Amino acid sequence: MAIILIEFNVEEKDEYSIVKFELKGNITPEVLKNLKPPQINPAKGVVLTGRGPIWLYCFLSHFYHPTRFIAVYDPRIGAVITESHSEKSIGEIIKI
Amino acid sequence: MAIILIEFNVEEKDEYSIVKFELKGNITPEVLKNLKPPQINPAKGVVLTGRGPIWLYCFLSHFYHPTRFIAVYDPRIGAVITESHSEKSIGEIIKI
Repeated sequence: MAIILIEFNVEEKDEYSIVKFELKGNITPEVLKNLKPPQINPAKGVVLTGRGPIWLYCFLSHFYHPTRFIAVYDPRIGAVITESHSEKSIGEIIKI
Repeated sequence: MAIILIEFNVEEKDEYSIVKFELKGNITPEVLKNLKPPQINPAKGVVLTGRGPIWLYCFLSHFYHPTRFIAVYDPRIGAVITESHSEKSIGEIIKI
């Protein structure tokens, strides 16, 4: 039985899906090998949020690459657009 | 005159280029709008390193997407492969 070390939750908004993760222990990069983040509607954007290592965020950014845009939630700022195939521009902030 | 808030340095290795950045002040997401990270040889991988916000890393990951692989340096672990179009596998660690 695989131990699930990363728990994902998806909250749907009109323009984007908020993919929130929670670490259930100390993760190592090994965890990326079999990680299956939730599938979402690629016609919408994705906002990534959760406390975790930068390499997990970069992995998730790549995983969700086919979506309309990707934003990273920074608690001090809001959700920052880091890539976009839409009218949103890089560096733009979404208040979620 | 634009103030350069992010300074990049590139160190070339056989298999990858190490792209190191240094923040020269408090950056806000605005900085991404005109950011021109160094061009590197896409036939090699890239290792990203530097102290900065997660959204900067996700932006850089996307920027270097066409390269052979992307790794994110974690001082506690090493450089973690987060995407790969090569023999390197996701989650693999490179000692740099």
